[in-house]
Amino acid sequence: MRRGSSCGETLKPVTFPTPVQEQIILVENRMRAQGADCHPDLRAALDHLLAAGGKRIRPTLGLLVGNLLGGNSDTLVTLGAAVELLHTATLVHDDLIDGALLRRGAETINARWSSAATVLTGDFLFARAAKLAAETDNLQLMRYFADTLAVIVNGELTQLFSARGVIHRDNYYQRIYAKTASLFEMSTRAAAMISAGDNQSAIETMRKFGYEIGMAFQIVDDLLDFTGDQSTVGKPLGSDLLQGLVTLPAIYYAEANPDHPDVRSLAAGGWGDHERMERLVQSIRNSDSIHRAMREAEGHIQSAVDCLVTFDNTEERSALEELARYVVDRRV
Amino acid sequence: MRRGSSCGETLKPVTFPTPVQEQIILVENRMRAQGADCHPDLRAALDHLLAAGGKRIRPTLGLLVGNLLGGNSDTLVTLGAAVELLHTATLVHDDLIDGALLRRGAETINARWSSAATVLTGDFLFARAAKLAAETDNLQLMRYFADTLAVIVNGELTQLFSARGVIHRDNYYQRIYAKTASLFEMSTRAAAMISAGDNQSAIETMRKFGYEIGMAFQIVDDLLDFTGDQSTVGKPLGSDLLQGLVTLPAIYYAEANPDHPDVRSLAAGGWGDHERMERLVQSIRNSDSIHRAMREAEGHIQSAVDCLVTFDNTEERSALEELARYVVDRRV
Repeated sequence: MRRGSSCGETLKPVTFPTPVQEQIILVENRMRAQGADCHPDLRAALDHLLAAGGKRIRPTLGLLVGNLLGGNSDTLVTLGAAVELLHTATLVHDDLIDGALLRRGAETINARWSSAATVLTGDFLFARAAKLAAETDNLQLMRYFADTLAVIVNGELTQLFSARGVIHRDNYYQRIYAKTASLFEMSTRAAAMISAGDNQSAIETMRKFGYEIGMAFQIVDDLLDFTGDQSTVGKPLGSDLLQGLVTLPAIYYAEANPDHPDVRSLAAGGWGDHERMERLVQSIRNSDSIHRAMREAEGHIQSAVDCLVTFDNTEERSALEELARYVVDRRV
Repeated sequence: MRRGSSCGETLKPVTFPTPVQEQIILVENRMRAQGADCHPDLRAALDHLLAAGGKRIRPTLGLLVGNLLGGNSDTLVTLGAAVELLHTATLVHDDLIDGALLRRGAETINARWSSAATVLTGDFLFARAAKLAAETDNLQLMRYFADTLAVIVNGELTQLFSARGVIHRDNYYQRIYAKTASLFEMSTRAAAMISAGDNQSAIETMRKFGYEIGMAFQIVDDLLDFTGDQSTVGKPLGSDLLQGLVTLPAIYYAEANPDHPDVRSLAAGGWGDHERMERLVQSIRNSDSIHRAMREAEGHIQSAVDCLVTFDNTEERSALEELARYVVDRRV
């Protein structure tokens, strides 16, 4: 179920605004330049990854926040490239772990290459991301960057070892924080650290802004797993639940229907029962759990937008507000 | 063929000296502390890796160099932990790539766990290594650290894609620089950067010292693949050549016997012919190529020791000289 149909709004294609479009091109160039002097096959892999694109939402956030606070453009571009390469590195390893063959409609590195080459390509991207982070000339940021990588990886390991079949809201929030919100939060907080000098209040506000956007982003991602257009999302409906990953719509449904046999089965570790889980996916789709999860994402977006009220109503602030709305309006 | 038998010296167990033994314990503690607040299974993996030990030769080098130059002990311990964790991270991914089941007599992470968990454990170690590097509060060092990781990974990818069956000395030197000498060089140069202030000459001398030791270390490793005690080395004799990796003894042999049918076969890409390669391994063992390769390693060690003559003859300098000799005297 998409937001448009659930909330009675008109569906329209939404893209987020780009008063930072030129800086994003510089970010792309900085990322691409990391392949110079490398083995040609590694360079080809990097080109393939960058050509596949992506929304570049993390660097866009960082650039808007940094510009709003009057930060140095070159440093913000460097930070944006560092954050996006870190994100790309985690995706390369994720796709290997999941055995995913497609991402953003393009073949994954592991689909084109061996596992060995995929592991090393991800490692190379980590190295280049760390190098770019160091080039911001900010030690505090550098530590923060490394800490964020540790949070993401620890989250993935936790998911791998002990998150299957767990119907628990706190577990879910911790998981999506580690998986997604931590890097959104880093994008905005780090941009503010670079740009706001000693203004700790601005840095904290921008941290919270990124956190709220990131939480909403992942909740919407998890919603789209139930409601999205399969051909657009590129995965079967309910693929999370079929792998035992219980996301917010399923948690709402389980809380409302604790005695339903399918819910009891899930809670008892029965997520491997494919037929039952497919039926549960349909039950969730037809319930108001989808709507409630979307309300929760919208709550995060409202909190994010509220963070911005203390700043002047500049072009950057408007763009950040639009970007926030895009996060809940998008269909992919 | 071991050095002892080839050079007529008495074989004796050699360990390298440790006037930095107490600091090495602090390095171990710093490494172990990185598992706090992690998923218990990740902590268990870290404990397993650290319990398996290793010679800690890289942090030992850094501590001796740093102490010799009057560096801050705590910063040197942090650097040592960063370097050793980076090294450990690359080993974890290497063992996964090679499908190795044992390292230092202990099960590898990939033997105990899934590939997915192994990828993520390596990633986590990268994150913690980067964090420790940032804690040295030296931006130049931080960039250098990231660059070294890129050199190592690029080297591994080059080996994966285009090094099999290549009988070429420059290719070999580039390969062992990327694989081993780059991190030895970083251990000593970074320790000097922390400890020698603006004394660029001391920093450059210590860089060269680490480089020479690292080159010798890998040449000896490659020698031991032909001559080592199989039960100690833990791999079949000539395992490099059987995988198409042509190391220095094989290069010397090929240069001296370019028209030998087995050499011609190797040069023509025939390293997959197991029987032929096993015969070639025996031919190399029985030739003076082993001796010549050892002479070359000893040349690097002499260059390393020569680097130290400008420094006062302190306990640290003696220990560095002993460590240099250990590199060519060791049997594992």
